[in-house]
Amino acid sequence: MTDHEYSTEALDLDLAWWAAANYLTVAQIYLKDNTLLREPLDASHIKPRLLGHWGTSPCLSMIYTLLNRHIKETDSDWLYVTGPGHGGPALVASTYLEGTYSEIYPHVGPDAAGVRRLCRQFSAPGGIPSHVSVQTPGSIHEGGELGYALVHAGGAAFDRPDLTIACVIGDGEAETGPLAGSWKLPAFLNARRDGAVLPILNLNGAKIAGPTVFGRSSDEDIVDFLHGQGWDPVVVSGTDPRVVFPELLRVLRESHEKIRLIQTAARDGGTSAQARWPAIVLRTPKGWTGPHTVDGVLVEGTFRAHQVPLSGVRTNPEHLAQLEDWLRSYRPEELFDDDGTLVAELAALAPAGDKRMGSTPYANGGRLLQPLRIPPLEKYEIPIESPGSSFHETTRVLGELMRDIYAQNGRDDGGGNFRLFSPDETASNRLAAVFEQTDRCWQLPTEEWDDHLSPDGRVMEVLSEHLCEGWLEGYVLAGGHGLFASYEAFAMVSVSMMIQHVKWLQHAADLAWREPVASLNVLLTSTCWRNDHNGFSHQGPGMIDAAIPLSPDVVRIWLPPDSNTLLSISDHCFRSRDHVNLIVVDKQPHLQYLTLDEANKHCAAGASIWHWAGTETESVGSPTEPDIVLAAAGDVPTQEILAAAQILQEWVPYLRVRMVNVVDLMALVTPGDHPHGFSESTFIDLFTADTDVVFAFHGYPRAVHELLHGRPKVDRFHVRGFNEQGTTTTPFDMVVLNRMSRYHLVLEALRRSRRVPEKGSELVDFCNSQLKRHASYVVEHMEDMPEVTDWTYTLH
Amino acid sequence: MTDHEYSTEALDLDLAWWAAANYLTVAQIYLKDNTLLREPLDASHIKPRLLGHWGTSPCLSMIYTLLNRHIKETDSDWLYVTGPGHGGPALVASTYLEGTYSEIYPHVGPDAAGVRRLCRQFSAPGGIPSHVSVQTPGSIHEGGELGYALVHAGGAAFDRPDLTIACVIGDGEAETGPLAGSWKLPAFLNARRDGAVLPILNLNGAKIAGPTVFGRSSDEDIVDFLHGQGWDPVVVSGTDPRVVFPELLRVLRESHEKIRLIQTAARDGGTSAQARWPAIVLRTPKGWTGPHTVDGVLVEGTFRAHQVPLSGVRTNPEHLAQLEDWLRSYRPEELFDDDGTLVAELAALAPAGDKRMGSTPYANGGRLLQPLRIPPLEKYEIPIESPGSSFHETTRVLGELMRDIYAQNGRDDGGGNFRLFSPDETASNRLAAVFEQTDRCWQLPTEEWDDHLSPDGRVMEVLSEHLCEGWLEGYVLAGGHGLFASYEAFAMVSVSMMIQHVKWLQHAADLAWREPVASLNVLLTSTCWRNDHNGFSHQGPGMIDAAIPLSPDVVRIWLPPDSNTLLSISDHCFRSRDHVNLIVVDKQPHLQYLTLDEANKHCAAGASIWHWAGTETESVGSPTEPDIVLAAAGDVPTQEILAAAQILQEWVPYLRVRMVNVVDLMALVTPGDHPHGFSESTFIDLFTADTDVVFAFHGYPRAVHELLHGRPKVDRFHVRGFNEQGTTTTPFDMVVLNRMSRYHLVLEALRRSRRVPEKGSELVDFCNSQLKRHASYVVEHMEDMPEVTDWTYTLH
Repeated sequence: MTDHEYSTEALDLDLAWWAAANYLTVAQIYLKDNTLLREPLDASHIKPRLLGHWGTSPCLSMIYTLLNRHIKETDSDWLYVTGPGHGGPALVASTYLEGTYSEIYPHVGPDAAGVRRLCRQFSAPGGIPSHVSVQTPGSIHEGGELGYALVHAGGAAFDRPDLTIACVIGDGEAETGPLAGSWKLPAFLNARRDGAVLPILNLNGAKIAGPTVFGRSSDEDIVDFLHGQGWDPVVVSGTDPRVVFPELLRVLRESHEKIRLIQTAARDGGTSAQARWPAIVLRTPKGWTGPHTVDGVLVEGTFRAHQVPLSGVRTNPEHLAQLEDWLRSYRPEELFDDDGTLVAELAALAPAGDKRMGSTPYANGGRLLQPLRIPPLEKYEIPIESPGSSFHETTRVLGELMRDIYAQNGRDDGGGNFRLFSPDETASNRLAAVFEQTDRCWQLPTEEWDDHLSPDGRVMEVLSEHLCEGWLEGYVLAGGHGLFASYEAFAMVSVSMMIQHVKWLQHAADLAWREPVASLNVLLTSTCWRNDHNGFSHQGPGMIDAAIPLSPDVVRIWLPPDSNTLLSISDHCFRSRDHVNLIVVDKQPHLQYLTLDEANKHCAAGASIWHWAGTETESVGSPTEPDIVLAAAGDVPTQEILAAAQILQEWVPYLRVRMVNVVDLMALVTPGDHPHGFSESTFIDLFTADTDVVFAFHGYPRAVHELLHGRPKVDRFHVRGFNEQGTTTTPFDMVVLNRMSRYHLVLEALRRSRRVPEKGSELVDFCNSQLKRHASYVVEHMEDMPEVTDWTYTLH
Repeated sequence: MTDHEYSTEALDLDLAWWAAANYLTVAQIYLKDNTLLREPLDASHIKPRLLGHWGTSPCLSMIYTLLNRHIKETDSDWLYVTGPGHGGPALVASTYLEGTYSEIYPHVGPDAAGVRRLCRQFSAPGGIPSHVSVQTPGSIHEGGELGYALVHAGGAAFDRPDLTIACVIGDGEAETGPLAGSWKLPAFLNARRDGAVLPILNLNGAKIAGPTVFGRSSDEDIVDFLHGQGWDPVVVSGTDPRVVFPELLRVLRESHEKIRLIQTAARDGGTSAQARWPAIVLRTPKGWTGPHTVDGVLVEGTFRAHQVPLSGVRTNPEHLAQLEDWLRSYRPEELFDDDGTLVAELAALAPAGDKRMGSTPYANGGRLLQPLRIPPLEKYEIPIESPGSSFHETTRVLGELMRDIYAQNGRDDGGGNFRLFSPDETASNRLAAVFEQTDRCWQLPTEEWDDHLSPDGRVMEVLSEHLCEGWLEGYVLAGGHGLFASYEAFAMVSVSMMIQHVKWLQHAADLAWREPVASLNVLLTSTCWRNDHNGFSHQGPGMIDAAIPLSPDVVRIWLPPDSNTLLSISDHCFRSRDHVNLIVVDKQPHLQYLTLDEANKHCAAGASIWHWAGTETESVGSPTEPDIVLAAAGDVPTQEILAAAQILQEWVPYLRVRMVNVVDLMALVTPGDHPHGFSESTFIDLFTADTDVVFAFHGYPRAVHELLHGRPKVDRFHVRGFNEQGTTTTPFDMVVLNRMSRYHLVLEALRRSRRVPEKGSELVDFCNSQLKRHASYVVEHMEDMPEVTDWTYTLH
């Protein structure tokens, strides 16, 4: 677009703004006093500990500077995603210069005291982190764990047609797997209803200690690489700011114009598919405008500029002098007035109000959040004649609920504020009802035999847990709602992203200006117990163990035993804010137990005694304590413990058995350690004060033991669960291999029971004979091959 | 290369071999009897449960067939990495046809009974998994959790100059982040000393329920994509086997010839850098040669061919008839003789002995493993004048040890059998001594300012935990040794790969034919306690929690408190086999405690009482039990607990304090649950039977509680550890934020002590005042900025 010139005056102003940003970046890293350099620099002005990343910062600030100009020219909405998030001081400086920072944090005012505070708080106790972080205005992306800039940008662009996202990607980050996978975005980004992502691949050539692959690749190779994935890249490179600024501004303008042409074509009723989106490859020196050499060694443009290029300033007078020269090269006296306030002609360069990238509501998605319209659950209720009498694919109701959520939360233009993300397993996970309402999202060519596939589809299927998780993270942080449905075991592929999202939410809760966002909902299905068809690699419940130690204010772990409890839990999760909800439930046909009404009460309680499954009330003896408590969390464990209870009832009916089902796992934790933790009296009401408990658990048994720490007499809890025994086998063999079968549970109950029942030894013999029969069945299977009906398990 | 023709006779033979492989694939999925189709098919011959993935299998078998021909022609060594690992029956079929399978598993012989057994064992209880797995001859790669084919291939190629690896990558897998990141291999693969990887990107166009991005991308785009990353791709596509076979064979031959030209040029003294390696893009129909349509719906070439295309064969006579037609289309009566043995002219197509891809020692790396020459540790010992009197960057000695391991385990050609893998942090992690012996590995252009960077370098730095972890996995499975050094928090990026590797080793141990391989050693440094400079995203000890529930026969977790214990542990880990060793230790200056001799004893014991740090022996009273046990695992916790002990000794010297240090974390587990678990008497010798224990732990406190389950009176253990409280701050503030500071530990010890000491309340006041002082220090920090010396912590 050539509507706007770029006069020398404008360039000079931009360079001055850039100088101010660079000055404040260096000042944050080095200075605790004399922060506007109103007197000669001496060692007493230097911070006791020098922290921060200089190398990437100048280019981050240049991009910010030019985007400011472009935003003012076009009155457009931009979000800035900082892949090189360690360049924190650059983004802090830019949002300070534009005024956002002082508005959000009035104690860091637009004056000399504010500049001093800005410098002192950086990387200091009680101050702010060194990275772009949740505290940084305008950010939805931390950038400490590299790899997620482009996937977060993609997620934030979905259903935000007026938004353009400048996504800066460092060449270090570009070496990560998740970033490499994110380039496939054009196959999923719809020009009609979604916003745009403009990747700016900033190649400064080096990481902390060496070169980068892209930094040493030819322009031609990089262009090929990007072009091959649906992008239309342009290379900008240079070392002279007076050349690079105009060139980059021109390319930014042209890129935005191309984006708008693509969008206009799509929105005027043309096709939105197969757009080739602009991308910028930007080669600039690492540590640009910083010390060129230090102690005779080249620094600028090399890995040596990565962090603090002059490290000896407190003790080495030459370093100190070089730092002063460096700081003065930005002419701070021309940038800030006598009060220490940015001079008016520079302040005027910033966009106004929410157009400022530090103030955009797209980076504070709670401001855009619309509550999800969730239909009443009764429509989806699975009828229960009697508990445990019918099988149902548990997750199927969630598909039906989401189908109607899609229907009720759409927009006229085909957009909406809800999306389901899954690695190609929506139908396999029994969620296919959503396809009655929408399709799989796909911008590449389609074939006649495709199934529910279209550019306007709103189910995001891509065989990458990283993309599913990261897109959903970006989507909710920009104000949307959604769910990521994963095979339980493979959710571990992206677990580190989930952990970083929990950390983000944990710290966001401390910031009043960050509005609550929709929770990150993760459905873990195709679980360890029922990947008997796929084998050991598909069997792993480790997500529970990864989530337990994270912030109790954020993490929730739900183990609905059946469909109606899943409905109740899902409704709760979709309405909740600022949480990460793990919902663990299998997709295969499972027994159903609770009516919706019962399920709602059960879920609200977190755990309940299932009187219908126990024998306490039938006991004639003392009404005090049960002889044994049987407990379960999870669908398969619930089934096996119920089967165990039935066996006990048949053989030793006079044994007082209590049945407890746990759906809210974190409620096991003491209330001081988790807000959902049962009070001691509730805990005792459920589990008694000293009766032994046989606990069948969905995941690794030790997870329950760690949760129970602090509860009365934890030694009495005997937990069976997934014990890392797996292969391709039958569902029943899985529970036997892991010693959680009904027979194992009965044996454990007899061993732990308060009373030794009559007929107990006969029952022991029966269980052992059943297990022996099973063992020989497995051994002889090669010659035997029984019918399918023998392969599944039912209650007696 | 055109030395070899491809006669019609040869083609016919290859098509017949392929038919045999396809036949056995379908038979494995469907048949339990009549497995050679010697009589008309009826429903009683069909397995009760139909499992397996047909779609990818025919193309996997075609590639195997043609590689067999090529191997025979060239007498070359090839390893076959099966990215679409769910195509298990294809690889089982191929290795059965070549004879390897029956040699390894004599009960599956080369006759009709063997074929029947082959079919029945597939995906059956007591049989074999449905995926390519550790049980599959010739495999180093499971392929259940998709994404790691190319990185495993790369790792297996390092230092194996005579090996070429055919790495088949499915277009589903190609959507994953880790696979996308793996294409950067050419920047790291040295033609002179390494083997070659020939990627075969098999585009059958579909995943389980939809199309793939590459499947719907143009050839031109895919070629651009690969070319841009250092590959020289050739596209082969077709649906007629009589066309595709000759074309693919030609391209395989030419690709291998190009590889050898690159290698010869490099090995004859030319440069090995910047080679552009061949790659094949292979478009073939999904479910090729299978049912074209089923019930009038197109199956072949679509996602519907992914698993079992005819699902109703037991009840639907049309399906059964169609299955019989399908099976008979391969003419099994011409492929297997009356005994059910592969006919001789087909059997003759297989290479001989270890040239067979199922028999290659490169897939059973223990056969190639050479013990590492490890120098005596004394050379690296940190002198200890008195415990806790000097600081040292703990990891530095490991760099020196690895430097000499590099020196002593090299080959004349620059190869060797040891490599260090790290995301660009070798120097940052204080391991830079290795650069006295070798460089960073780099095949792209270099600049004069580069630091220890060369094509022949043997330190693998790439900013991708997935590549570091995956390359090391491939490297050790092919017979090498190595270590992956990671920032502790970011090791979680690739944790799912570590989990899959543990699963692999767990099942490999059951197979006598799989020789032991070097352990996977993972150094977790830059730990949660000392990322005070980087902030919360860099602070997370979750790897410990992820590893604890995995196979106790594989997982080891080590927490050396200082340099000499790190030396002892590292020596042990480098000598160990078939384990995954997590070594958790920070890189910053830390206090040093034990001489090497003491360290060796301490590590051999797993945990010891540090008498010099306790006051038990000084007590005059009853010699029975200590009043309190102080325990620690990890460097920072050890320091804080020792400081706490010093404070106690100063204030309440008559209190009997025992100090226990734990270095082998899994030794806390009961011996029935982990081979390293302390016997009950050893446990009581350390921790007493009922004295309270204040335990300072490196990771999340609940991890200790889960480990302690089953030990006597676990309620008496009071664990402090990382509690997910972090930011950019000072080291001491980190221990205060997480309530593990010396003052918190003293307060806990006083609270839990068997005796209430005199002066106890004064000491409580002292600790509280110290913590209050710290709190106000943090609050006032913005105005105060104390000197660096106040930012670190020392013993009193």
